[in-house]
Amino acid sequence: MAKPRTVQMVERLRDLQVSSLDIEGSALVSLDGLIMASSLPPVVEEDRVSAMSAAMLSLGERIAGELGRGVLEQVYVRGQDGYVVLRAVGEEAVLTVLARDTAKLGLLLLDMRRAAEDLANIV
Amino acid sequence: MAKPRTVQMVERLRDLQVSSLDIEGSALVSLDGLIMASSLPPVVEEDRVSAMSAAMLSLGERIAGELGRGVLEQVYVRGQDGYVVLRAVGEEAVLTVLARDTAKLGLLLLDMRRAAEDLANIV
Repeated sequence: MAKPRTVQMVERLRDLQVSSLDIEGSALVSLDGLIMASSLPPVVEEDRVSAMSAAMLSLGERIAGELGRGVLEQVYVRGQDGYVVLRAVGEEAVLTVLARDTAKLGLLLLDMRRAAEDLANIV
Repeated sequence: MAKPRTVQMVERLRDLQVSSLDIEGSALVSLDGLIMASSLPPVVEEDRVSAMSAAMLSLGERIAGELGRGVLEQVYVRGQDGYVVLRAVGEEAVLTVLARDTAKLGLLLLDMRRAAEDLANIV
C-alpha cells in the first residue's frame, strides 16, 4: 500500500535537509498560507513560516508582475544569519527553506529545484 | 568643484549598468520609498520601482527577523523573464536592480555589492 501523501511530503522535506546540512528547516505551504507538510526545528513555529511564506509569495508575484519580470519563480531573502528561500511547487504550493549563512546558494537552489519537482508530483 | 551628489549617484548607477549588460535599470530608493537617483528604461516608472522596493524591503526585514535570519542584507525575486534584486545601501537607502533572465546571478550580486559600497559613501 502506498504511503499517505503527507508522509511522503515530510520524507521528501527531510531528504532535502539530509542533502544539504546547511538547511535548518523546510515547509510546504499552500498558496493561501496553510501548512501542507513541514520539517522545522522546534524553535520555529509552523504558523509563522506559513504566514511569512504566503505574504512573501503574494508580494513577490506583484513585484515580478509590476516590474515586468514575468511569472514568479523564486524569492530569496538574505539576512546576516542566513537565508529564507521560497520556490513555487507546481501551481498549488510553495516550498520554503530556512538555511544557515554558511549555505552555498548555488547548491541550495539546485537541491530546492529537485525537491520542488518531486513535491509537485506528490501534491 | 565637486559634482552634485545626485549626479554622482546617477553616474554610479550608470557605471553599474555598463559593467553588467544584463542590468536593464537601477534605482536608489530611500527607506520610506522615495527615489534618490535612478537610471531606468523609459518603460519603467520610477514611482512603481520605489513603491515596490519599499514594500519588499519592509516585508524582507520582517521575514528575516521573524524567522531568525538576523538583519536584512538582500532580497531577490526571480521571475520567468528576469530578476529584481534589492540590497541595503548603508542604513538610509536601498539599491534596486532590474536584470534580464540571462544575468549571471553571482556576478550581478558582486557588482551590486561594489555599487552599494560606493553609493553609501555618496549618500
